Amino acid sequence: MDLDAIFSALSHPIRRAMLEQLAGGDATVSELARPHGVSLPAISRHLRVLERAGLLKEEPDGRVRRCQIDAAPLSAAFGWLTRYRVLWEDRFARLAEHLEETRKKERKEERKHAHNR
Amino acid sequence: MDLDAIFSALSHPIRRAMLEQLAGGDATVSELARPHGVSLPAISRHLRVLERAGLLKEEPDGRVRRCQIDAAPLSAAFGWLTRYRVLWEDRFARLAEHLEETRKKERKEERKHAHNR
Repeated sequence: MDLDAIFSALSHPIRRAMLEQLAGGDATVSELARPHGVSLPAISRHLRVLERAGLLKEEPDGRVRRCQIDAAPLSAAFGWLTRYRVLWEDRFARLAEHLEETRKKERKEERKHAHNR
Repeated sequence: MDLDAIFSALSHPIRRAMLEQLAGGDATVSELARPHGVSLPAISRHLRVLERAGLLKEEPDGRVRRCQIDAAPLSAAFGWLTRYRVLWEDRFARLAEHLEETRKKERKEERKHAHNR
């Protein structure tokens, strides 16, 4: 699993949209191209990037080419990210704590203000 | 959270190594440069990419610059990937099933072979 190729493949919105579309089922190249207002050579380049990352399989099906997602490389990216999960969960927990403290202070101020009126 | 910038930042081994190093604690720019045999301008470019993705904070600390990881954007990348978890888990399950079937057949063949000798 080549993390460089996988993360690089995920760094473009058209390629992420293609994977989202393929997660719903196989599609032909023209079905994959349809939602994006870009040229067919550009679509082909995106498909090559996905293929090199191992995320896409293309097979001839009569006169068209049928594409299929291979999600296995995504698990490598997922695995890399899970190691940092504790860091962002810590950060969100501290942020939530900070917001709670701020809210408490505000409520206290409001009560003081209401009392003094 | 800019998924393009985040996934792009993760697509280089030096930048992933920098994040791994920073996950262990803050570091100066030269501490981050040390494990990699590349020029300081190259290191600076990598740091800018991480910074633009919101993954790194740099602060002056006397005469040096101290870097800190911000793991929050990684949770956005993680969130995007979790949607595909069911796909790769399915795929690994089918692979395991296939291997189990193959192993069963092999054992059956071995027994037949042993019996015939």
